[in-house]
Amino acid sequence: MKTPEVAENPVNLTKCLQNVRVVLSHTSHPGNIGAAARAMKTMGLEQLYLINPRTFPDAQADAMASSAADVLQNAVVCSTLDEALQGVVLVAGMSARVRDISQEVLTPRAAMPLLVEQALQQPVALLFGTEMSGLTNDELARCQVMVRIPVSPSYTSLNLAAAVQLISYELRLAAGLGEYAAPLLSPAPAEQVERFFVHLEQALHDIEFLHSKHSTKLMQKLRRLYSRARLEQEEINILRGILTLSTEYHGKLKQQAKDKA
Amino acid sequence: MKTPEVAENPVNLTKCLQNVRVVLSHTSHPGNIGAAARAMKTMGLEQLYLINPRTFPDAQADAMASSAADVLQNAVVCSTLDEALQGVVLVAGMSARVRDISQEVLTPRAAMPLLVEQALQQPVALLFGTEMSGLTNDELARCQVMVRIPVSPSYTSLNLAAAVQLISYELRLAAGLGEYAAPLLSPAPAEQVERFFVHLEQALHDIEFLHSKHSTKLMQKLRRLYSRARLEQEEINILRGILTLSTEYHGKLKQQAKDKA
Repeated sequence: MKTPEVAENPVNLTKCLQNVRVVLSHTSHPGNIGAAARAMKTMGLEQLYLINPRTFPDAQADAMASSAADVLQNAVVCSTLDEALQGVVLVAGMSARVRDISQEVLTPRAAMPLLVEQALQQPVALLFGTEMSGLTNDELARCQVMVRIPVSPSYTSLNLAAAVQLISYELRLAAGLGEYAAPLLSPAPAEQVERFFVHLEQALHDIEFLHSKHSTKLMQKLRRLYSRARLEQEEINILRGILTLSTEYHGKLKQQAKDKA
Repeated sequence: MKTPEVAENPVNLTKCLQNVRVVLSHTSHPGNIGAAARAMKTMGLEQLYLINPRTFPDAQADAMASSAADVLQNAVVCSTLDEALQGVVLVAGMSARVRDISQEVLTPRAAMPLLVEQALQQPVALLFGTEMSGLTNDELARCQVMVRIPVSPSYTSLNLAAAVQLISYELRLAAGLGEYAAPLLSPAPAEQVERFFVHLEQALHDIEFLHSKHSTKLMQKLRRLYSRARLEQEEINILRGILTLSTEYHGKLKQQAKDKA
């Protein structure tokens, strides 16, 4: 979907999200508008279009938007769908249910890369219908792509702002912005891990926990445990420090016993 | 991650979701508890554990839960983390920020398959901290897996219920329950499409839109358009019906002109 040049340039991808407008049609509850604004902003979307919202602006919308007040303030209130879609070259409609109209319906994961690809150059829209009845047939007729979020068959009633959250998230991931600089595990190199196992085995012999007869099997079990944990260097240092002190302590006790005898 | 046997058995996978408990620690706003219950239920999760919620049960929680009232009614209110994690073999903690503690942090998409794999056999937990400060260090210490939802660097403040929604969604998809029986496009077979193009070209000649000199290039452009749309049989029938009538009408006009002359 993305050229290598684009994939390596997060600035382009962030800009591409600015080409994505979220269009909420005839929303009933202002709280949902606010929560949708917050959901959008957490994923880097900022263009909110409202077609005939029942109540807007509204204190409840402000409260639910939290610090996404700017998204609400910049929201474009429209009286028609045409107005909201002006300049848009690709419209993805969110459908909660199977329709009579036989139209291809994609999962968010399949659809969002198409939106991203287009948004790299031109404005695209995500169109959400009302809380109660979704998109009208006239609205559906304006969508080139239909998207349905997978839900549990026994309870399909996704909240509007929750749907905006999921779609915005998938869009962010499709734009390649789903990775972050995280503190990853830095496992120690093999030779350090081996030195730890040698130290461990020696220490377990010293404190007489291991006896040569059973040592192989027990050491295999301990190897399995620590291998699974993928030890970091600092952890090896801590564990070896514990081993050193344990054996010293044990050695001193043995020496004392010998001295007394 | 999944054996073929399991992957082919959605009953197992639905059951596996019942082994997933959502643990909300010290939640401040009852509305978030209700919205989280609704979010869980849309994705097939039902086990809600609440550690010392500030206000519960609560009318606002009920209102936000919508028809997920059963999830709230069956919620287990605990006074300690130990209580909430009893019987759980794998704990995934949601972290909103980079911590001092150097622990490997996974994306939801990378982490949820691990949870699903384990939940096929034994209970697992998704642990969410408070709205204001997330998980405490004591809570973090109980997590085998750390998960961070990718967010926009310029606004990271994801609502608690929105986070529950995203994680539950990723879990459902990881369990292989993200596909649905959708009305897919049923493109017509090649020979039918070809017959349409032959008909189209003939009709365009008949109505004198096409002249032999330019016909190849124009037909290529029309082919490109209709190929992109991937015509279904019914659509071909409609288009050919239009072509038939257009040429008939045009033929009649020509005949009238001839008769008059």
